[in-house]
Amino acid sequence: MIKEYKISEIKNIKLNGRSTDCLEPYTLFWTGSGFEVNVKGRELWVEIEADYEEQEPWFTVLINGAPVLRQMAPKGSNKICLFRSRNPEEIKNVRFIKDSQAMHDDEKCMLSIHSLITDGVFCSIDERKLKIEFIGDSITSGEGIFGDTKEEDWVSMFFSGVYSYAALTAEKFKADYRIISQSGWGVLSSWDGNTANAIPKYYEKVCGLLTGDRNKKLGATDDYDFKKWQPDVVVVNLGTNDCNAFEMPEFTYTIEDFENEVIMFLKKIRKYNPKADIIWGYGMLGYKMTASITRAVNAYTLETGDKKVHFINLPNTREGMFGSRQHPGLKSHKQAAEVLSDYIMGMI
Amino acid sequence: MIKEYKISEIKNIKLNGRSTDCLEPYTLFWTGSGFEVNVKGRELWVEIEADYEEQEPWFTVLINGAPVLRQMAPKGSNKICLFRSRNPEEIKNVRFIKDSQAMHDDEKCMLSIHSLITDGVFCSIDERKLKIEFIGDSITSGEGIFGDTKEEDWVSMFFSGVYSYAALTAEKFKADYRIISQSGWGVLSSWDGNTANAIPKYYEKVCGLLTGDRNKKLGATDDYDFKKWQPDVVVVNLGTNDCNAFEMPEFTYTIEDFENEVIMFLKKIRKYNPKADIIWGYGMLGYKMTASITRAVNAYTLETGDKKVHFINLPNTREGMFGSRQHPGLKSHKQAAEVLSDYIMGMI
Amino acid sequence: MIKEYKISEIKNIKLNGRSTDCLEPYTLFWTGSGFEVNVKGRELWVEIEADYEEQEPWFTVLINGAPVLRQMAPKGSNKICLFRSRNPEEIKNVRFIKDSQAMHDDEKCMLSIHSLITDGVFCSIDERKLKIEFIGDSITSGEGIFGDTKEEDWVSMFFSGVYSYAALTAEKFKADYRIISQSGWGVLSSWDGNTANAIPKYYEKVCGLLTGDRNKKLGATDDYDFKKWQPDVVVVNLGTNDCNAFEMPEFTYTIEDFENEVIMFLKKIRKYNPKADIIWGYGMLGYKMTASITRAVNAYTLETGDKKVHFINLPNTREGMFGSRQHPGLKSHKQAAEVLSDYIMGMI
Amino acid sequence: MIKEYKISEIKNIKLNGRSTDCLEPYTLFWTGSGFEVNVKGRELWVEIEADYEEQEPWFTVLINGAPVLRQMAPKGSNKICLFRSRNPEEIKNVRFIKDSQAMHDDEKCMLSIHSLITDGVFCSIDERKLKIEFIGDSITSGEGIFGDTKEEDWVSMFFSGVYSYAALTAEKFKADYRIISQSGWGVLSSWDGNTANAIPKYYEKVCGLLTGDRNKKLGATDDYDFKKWQPDVVVVNLGTNDCNAFEMPEFTYTIEDFENEVIMFLKKIRKYNPKADIIWGYGMLGYKMTASITRAVNAYTLETGDKKVHFINLPNTREGMFGSRQHPGLKSHKQAAEVLSDYIMGMI
Repeated sequence: MIKEYKISEIKNIKLNGRSTDCLEPYTLFWTGSGFEVNVKGRELWVEIEADYEEQEPWFTVLINGAPVLRQMAPKGSNKICLFRSRNPEEIKNVRFIKDSQAMHDDEKCMLSIHSLITDGVFCSIDERKLKIEFIGDSITSGEGIFGDTKEEDWVSMFFSGVYSYAALTAEKFKADYRIISQSGWGVLSSWDGNTANAIPKYYEKVCGLLTGDRNKKLGATDDYDFKKWQPDVVVVNLGTNDCNAFEMPEFTYTIEDFENEVIMFLKKIRKYNPKADIIWGYGMLGYKMTASITRAVNAYTLETGDKKVHFINLPNTREGMFGSRQHPGLKSHKQAAEVLSDYIMGMI
Repeated sequence: MIKEYKISEIKNIKLNGRSTDCLEPYTLFWTGSGFEVNVKGRELWVEIEADYEEQEPWFTVLINGAPVLRQMAPKGSNKICLFRSRNPEEIKNVRFIKDSQAMHDDEKCMLSIHSLITDGVFCSIDERKLKIEFIGDSITSGEGIFGDTKEEDWVSMFFSGVYSYAALTAEKFKADYRIISQSGWGVLSSWDGNTANAIPKYYEKVCGLLTGDRNKKLGATDDYDFKKWQPDVVVVNLGTNDCNAFEMPEFTYTIEDFENEVIMFLKKIRKYNPKADIIWGYGMLGYKMTASITRAVNAYTLETGDKKVHFINLPNTREGMFGSRQHPGLKSHKQAAEVLSDYIMGMI
Repeated sequence: MIKEYKISEIKNIKLNGRSTDCLEPYTLFWTGSGFEVNVKGRELWVEIEADYEEQEPWFTVLINGAPVLRQMAPKGSNKICLFRSRNPEEIKNVRFIKDSQAMHDDEKCMLSIHSLITDGVFCSIDERKLKIEFIGDSITSGEGIFGDTKEEDWVSMFFSGVYSYAALTAEKFKADYRIISQSGWGVLSSWDGNTANAIPKYYEKVCGLLTGDRNKKLGATDDYDFKKWQPDVVVVNLGTNDCNAFEMPEFTYTIEDFENEVIMFLKKIRKYNPKADIIWGYGMLGYKMTASITRAVNAYTLETGDKKVHFINLPNTREGMFGSRQHPGLKSHKQAAEVLSDYIMGMI
Repeated sequence: MIKEYKISEIKNIKLNGRSTDCLEPYTLFWTGSGFEVNVKGRELWVEIEADYEEQEPWFTVLINGAPVLRQMAPKGSNKICLFRSRNPEEIKNVRFIKDSQAMHDDEKCMLSIHSLITDGVFCSIDERKLKIEFIGDSITSGEGIFGDTKEEDWVSMFFSGVYSYAALTAEKFKADYRIISQSGWGVLSSWDGNTANAIPKYYEKVCGLLTGDRNKKLGATDDYDFKKWQPDVVVVNLGTNDCNAFEMPEFTYTIEDFENEVIMFLKKIRKYNPKADIIWGYGMLGYKMTASITRAVNAYTLETGDKKVHFINLPNTREGMFGSRQHPGLKSHKQAAEVLSDYIMGMI
């Protein structure tokens, strides 16, 4: 018999992505957020609630590890079928993953999970052995993975939380992962030189870069409780937008300012993730900040004695590897995931 | 200003797939059916109507050639957004493609298009220079392209009208294509020896293998008017299920019966497609019927003098190329599309 | 201590390729001929004897399965080092393989093995479990695998006995293989319509298509003793040159003549290889003879009741897959080897 | 008519690799050394002279860009045929490339070119627009590109001057290239901690790491005249062996010593190559020295103000990419060449 379960009623559910403790509903703030269940039953539906002004949320569903469904979240509350007519005796692993990023510029943009509906039962889920946090910009948000190479419009349709180097790297380790990322932002400033749009400023909040009253009520601007989920590895992929800012004549900050921000951000990450290996992985859209980032990483290590901070170049996106909006396409993300996961493998 | 247009009101729309003349609504019977528009506007929605008992319809949407959305059609009438927030001055090419096949066993299964809703205008669409008709079984229905390799349930979720060798071959030529296919069926009989479930019996109808009153009213069992769309090439990929029938001890037909059906089917195809090259492409799930099919094709040519009938082996699906349900996966479909399109290229 | 061993003195040597019983020296007539030894020692040399007028012989050496050396055989007797300075305690598997084909047009062309020279010992060689004979034309001779795509000269340098679909198929099964092939030749006639240059005419001889007194003395024109090496599988890849002959206006034979020759050749192959599966694999340079070959194969089976004769299309060479002289390159040979070995795997 | 030409008599010849001015004979010291000619003629031979105690020289010949021949250089003077029986009216581009490295440990090892023999004429050779110098260890020497993955013996057979990342990178730019490399050596010391075996110590000599009287007479230990060939780019791929030295308990040097050597080596390279971009490319066999190398590169830049010195990680060799002797195989070298040539492309 089909029955509806609030998220808070389901014991065997894994909730992914940085969020609050609220389960009624459970809000998906960041790219790659979602839930995972193992359902022994004939069918499964999810009730989601969505809103937006400009940028509608997108999500992908994987059944037994294979992506089968990718769609826009319609406005309002909707029941979406995730599978039907299946053998009720078999357990289906289902992962619901938010494809679009937290939207700084659209305070109405919202996606939350209210309930699951099934004729079956929720079975236990194996603990994953590794936890990875990714911090980045549009590259880490998977911008440009979908869409034709000629596309220029900045729309949520072209983002992916499933095929990015971050998701692919996590997949190689069957790791839990969380993504903190914003298109156009950097360490010191955004691509257009706005120092308010810097990831480090919001790192300690649940999803502090969101705006508007509703996001505030949902807890986006609350302090994030790092103790609940301590990553084994933190990957930072930032610097690409800062590089652009330095090419703007009116930008008055210096490369030393950037390096100081890198150092301070490393200290902040270390503060909240005392045991993690921290990898600064950089290069997927050009290598120009390599010298500066390595100077900062080396200076941080010299100052703190912290040996668990690493730098590695991720390979640049080459001709034939681009997706839409001059961003890395799937081939580039796969290449970066191979280099990065090999690095992590050699480290852990 | 957003406005709703009935399909019959839209001049610049291309309707794909074998169907009736009815446009209010336009029914998508077969895999690969759908519509194509070029929209200069900010957003586009489609109103679809769907129904099902067991097997819900699935569809994929391609924007400027790139697949961005793949979802289940929910029961009833629904407005689905295909794009939003786009540059209103640019033309977006949009293709809506049915992923799931005509469902012989689910008389309620239905998908139709009522209207398009946009703030923009519908621009002209370039005529495609080649027309290809594909006739086949589950392979041509793209069964197994989606889903994990371990999946065993027969559900519409695992079918694709976008990544099958048929769709990929058409794509190489930027050709119009229509697909007549049914999972489990063959030339003489279905995989389990039921001679009622044979594609040639229904070739002359719009979608004659559908059942139930509603499908009848929709025109599925009407005679199909071949004159409206004359393919340049007809590809037949049948024989795989017949092969299985011959392995059943209770199956009393002979291999000569099969060959006679092949000959009669070729005559029927030729009758309705007088100018087309006809290619029997076979082998993606084993080569056992090669001798029998070539005997029949050669006998047909000898009897009729028809030189425009061809046989070619499509490469078998090898280890590592399988999708779900022991069916060809994407790698196998790509391989077959390369061989088949090379063949067509050398022929036309 | 370095010592020279005549071939007849070495117990643990495997001699490959169709040849005579003569071991002093052992003559390599066909593509893919050669020897295999397992040497526990520091170094190994071979004494070869070669001659030629126009087309010098080429050979490749594989050490532990990896090709390391490929060179022209210089005129006269020469000692060639195959490895040096190796760990004397380890066994090295060494295979010497003739890359260039038997040369019908150069009666001086000759390559033979006189002796091996080593400080080590010859260890036992594992028996290979499958034997495959390949019969073909330039494709089976590996013509065009070496050399730039723009090369037009017909020279032995561009042939390979190591990277052809035949060698690659054998490698997949770790099978023994023998190759009977001649560039330009066919079943009924050569590419230019000369019915004297037809492989079936010489199938019963050791290497009957060679000319001149020396080849006669070497035993090339002797009857071949098929009993000594009975293949499990015979692959025939012929028809491509016959196809060309039919396009010459002065060629007076009919397609029925060709089909009769195919039938007679199948009977001849069956006579000498009573237990083998015979596969006619065709298509690597065009599919035009498919109908004709399948008619002949089917007629042969009908007449003889022989069920162990098969037809399969090998995929055509597509753009980007060509080697030199408009012949299949390595990618095409790999593709054909995958399809063919998959076929054999399903059959044995 | 066949005629022999001393190297000094041939105007249209390009001599590659760091060497002396002596042309009678022309000695090939380093990996990748050799010559290039464009011959309009029927055949071409080369007279080489070789010697060795333990490690024989190997070479590869490319005709019109395609490798066709790879063999050991036999002891003494030998005439080797490079092509025969060709269309005498066509120009053949021929490149002779030394595959094995300069052999520090075998003072007898030697390969030189005495003359070319042809019936044709030597035509002009296009100037290449870019010059690249590569400085490295076994990776740059192409060690392990040939041979089975299980091979452990250190022998010259397994080296390649044609398929290394250095050669492949040069090929992408159709660039002239020179390679200065020695297996096992580093910046401060060799893999086993011997500071005599450091590349910078010998950088100013023609091939100063060679030993013995003959090499001295040949000019290996002479000062090298950098003015004759000024590279546009210098790539340094060193640090892998230094990393190993630091893991040896008896090694008393510090990481600061290593970094000082890097800085001093950069100064030395800059002194002799005033206009070149210098790229330190590192990581193909592990990333452990990244922090140390970037510290040194950054310190060098800070001290000198030299902005044309770059650091980039080349991707590590991953499972399935290894060649023999646990060294990078062809896949790894291709991957590194893609990353490196993309870097150079973005820089020049």
